[in-house]
Amino acid sequence: MQHRILIRDLPAKLGETVIVAGWLHRLRDLSKFGFAILRDRTGLVQVVLSTEQLESLKGFQVETVLKVTGEVVKKQSKDPNANEVEIQAMSVEILSPVKDVVPVEINKEEVDVQLDTLLDNRVVTLRHPKQRAIFRVQAALVHGFRSFMESQGFTEIFFPVLAGAASEGGAEFFRVDYYGREATLTQSAQLYKQITMGVYEGVYGVSYSFRAEKFATSRHLTEFNQLEFEVGFVDDMEDVMAYGESATRAMLAEVAMSCVPELELLGVTLPPLGDRFPRVKLKEALEIYKAGTGIDETQEPDLSPAAEKWLSTQWAPKEHGTGFVFVTHYPESKRPFYVALDPEDPTSTLSFDLIGFGSEIVSGGMRINRYDEQIARIKAKGLKPEEFEDYLMMHKYGIPPEGGWGMGLQRLTQNVLGLANIKEATIFPRDVQRLRP
Amino acid sequence: MQHRILIRDLPAKLGETVIVAGWLHRLRDLSKFGFAILRDRTGLVQVVLSTEQLESLKGFQVETVLKVTGEVVKKQSKDPNANEVEIQAMSVEILSPVKDVVPVEINKEEVDVQLDTLLDNRVVTLRHPKQRAIFRVQAALVHGFRSFMESQGFTEIFFPVLAGAASEGGAEFFRVDYYGREATLTQSAQLYKQITMGVYEGVYGVSYSFRAEKFATSRHLTEFNQLEFEVGFVDDMEDVMAYGESATRAMLAEVAMSCVPELELLGVTLPPLGDRFPRVKLKEALEIYKAGTGIDETQEPDLSPAAEKWLSTQWAPKEHGTGFVFVTHYPESKRPFYVALDPEDPTSTLSFDLIGFGSEIVSGGMRINRYDEQIARIKAKGLKPEEFEDYLMMHKYGIPPEGGWGMGLQRLTQNVLGLANIKEATIFPRDVQRLRP
Repeated sequence: MQHRILIRDLPAKLGETVIVAGWLHRLRDLSKFGFAILRDRTGLVQVVLSTEQLESLKGFQVETVLKVTGEVVKKQSKDPNANEVEIQAMSVEILSPVKDVVPVEINKEEVDVQLDTLLDNRVVTLRHPKQRAIFRVQAALVHGFRSFMESQGFTEIFFPVLAGAASEGGAEFFRVDYYGREATLTQSAQLYKQITMGVYEGVYGVSYSFRAEKFATSRHLTEFNQLEFEVGFVDDMEDVMAYGESATRAMLAEVAMSCVPELELLGVTLPPLGDRFPRVKLKEALEIYKAGTGIDETQEPDLSPAAEKWLSTQWAPKEHGTGFVFVTHYPESKRPFYVALDPEDPTSTLSFDLIGFGSEIVSGGMRINRYDEQIARIKAKGLKPEEFEDYLMMHKYGIPPEGGWGMGLQRLTQNVLGLANIKEATIFPRDVQRLRP
Repeated sequence: MQHRILIRDLPAKLGETVIVAGWLHRLRDLSKFGFAILRDRTGLVQVVLSTEQLESLKGFQVETVLKVTGEVVKKQSKDPNANEVEIQAMSVEILSPVKDVVPVEINKEEVDVQLDTLLDNRVVTLRHPKQRAIFRVQAALVHGFRSFMESQGFTEIFFPVLAGAASEGGAEFFRVDYYGREATLTQSAQLYKQITMGVYEGVYGVSYSFRAEKFATSRHLTEFNQLEFEVGFVDDMEDVMAYGESATRAMLAEVAMSCVPELELLGVTLPPLGDRFPRVKLKEALEIYKAGTGIDETQEPDLSPAAEKWLSTQWAPKEHGTGFVFVTHYPESKRPFYVALDPEDPTSTLSFDLIGFGSEIVSGGMRINRYDEQIARIKAKGLKPEEFEDYLMMHKYGIPPEGGWGMGLQRLTQNVLGLANIKEATIFPRDVQRLRP
């Protein structure tokens, strides 16, 4: 729109006549005159309306789209939340009329409704500044990730969604009627990451993963994205973690730099990064947890949610000045068939989780890159090599020593922003019940 | 891998001892000594091997992954295609053995097989330098697109794949068994683009679209990506085309800048951009085509493939110094229900195609942003408003004047590179027959 000024830029236009456009956020009718609060993507501004202008808005509801021409003047009000300037309207034009009352109020401090109501009315509730801010932060996380991967010479891959067979075995996949036969929705980009790593050496991308989870929980979605990378010609798992640590730093730096208003609005402080994320073996991590809390989980094959929380929010900040910790060497029973075994202890794997914000945010590790070894491992997991023909083809024809990771984008967003439910961190969430909007 | 040097960087290391790693591309055994051609993601290099080193490679096939330590020396050979330097091997280590002969030869100038064989063996054929180059160019196109959109303050959206109902009506959608009920795979991101535009004002993203096409052709896929944008508060369709033209320029500039070796390898010259892409109404375009070629298609409701070719490769370069032309105002019968009608001629729409590289590469236009108008238009198209409840919710609660576009990523890549079949421009293509790898 020609000559339109964004609301955040108005203070620099004091005394000038400008055009602003946006949504009618609130209307206060004081009979002789009135105020409209106008909202655009950059903020709110108060518009002072004459009786005639007020009259012209009669019958129109909030969310009506307006174009206002007026003078930028110093604001009289002492409302500390308001902009310093306001607009003395000269003309008000209705760009898009709204005649119905919005189903959910979005002009208060919070959207005060149940999660299902919030999501059923996504079209409207997403307009609330706090809801809007969530997905600005999400986009910034992805940009930070991509920028780092590009700086390392990695190639972006657009992974497919439709697949012929379940990529990781198991029962939790969706079936698609594909011209009378069965297709599945990819559970993971693992196959495609490894194939393309065998070409581009370093690859990354934002994948779609689908899991036919049986239950709707606060941590699960049936459709989600992962920030994936896979890198070849590594010397050992430390190389993979080093790429991952740098990527994480780049992502949070991007958010810190480009999302200042969003973090302030959401009341979020990013955790300390420190000089280096500590690396501890699972067994050590459980000993540290026991020593620090008295809780003995040293016989467990995994970290409990409480242990993940304590390690990343208590121990790591105190001992290493960071909110992140790599926990490594998970038992082979807890990791998929493609994860490399630890040559020093074949009941353990060359695998890691990155724990941050109180919970696991990444799984990764070294992969098996030799053909015979991968076949043996598939069999040991009770799976059939003949069902992994395309997968095994890459091992048969040579892939270098390599590893990678997958970071759930919505879970990461949930954790960074401290949201109670992963669906709040998902712009159009899908679960057992929900397929819309 | 510590101290590894990429093959393209070897000339600067002349006289030094280096580590290189990659795939055994070819092996020439001259009994007393031999040559290995090593391939990494940046090129090929000849490695001179001693009798013992040759012996150690006995029984290993091409694509075996090697790590070579050796001295960088001036090359003796006069092969004009070879690198200027070669490596005098000091040690050769097998990182990953290959015992089987590759199913498709990838160490010749071209991969000389049928398309189906090429795709069945994607794991191996993608390693051919010309195949590999295709998806480097594809990634660069996307980066150019994103950079431009970010520079305009647009927000990236991750559009969902699973949907409750077919988004554009019609029969060409895939059904998913979703906990006993039916879900569909999105045909288009249109709904999500418009909802989020109503929040962020300008949005973009790489969407996945799924079409249950009845036939496999050289131009159709069942799964493909689109470079999408949608922008609000525009004055008219010219604003939308201006964003699109700038995006196209940014994309081709990115390819020209970052894909010099790939374009050379593929023998591709990018078309001229000129100062401004011409805008012509469909009716004018058909008149121009008639005047220039004698072929009268002025009664047709669309451009024929021959007309698209002539306009973008003959007329536009000659008359406007560019390989691109916006053709506008397609008849309402040829456009979906959400496209705005032309107020000056309601049998026509405020729509455009961008024609380039000999064919249509983008569809776009202004959308209907008023509730009553959209309901009327859905009915006029023989569709039922009650089936578009979520879609209509955004009109009901106010969206600004707006428009957008969708550019098929694989079709664009096919056109930029002059590939015969769209599946060559798709890293893991899906069609009526194909679901793997």
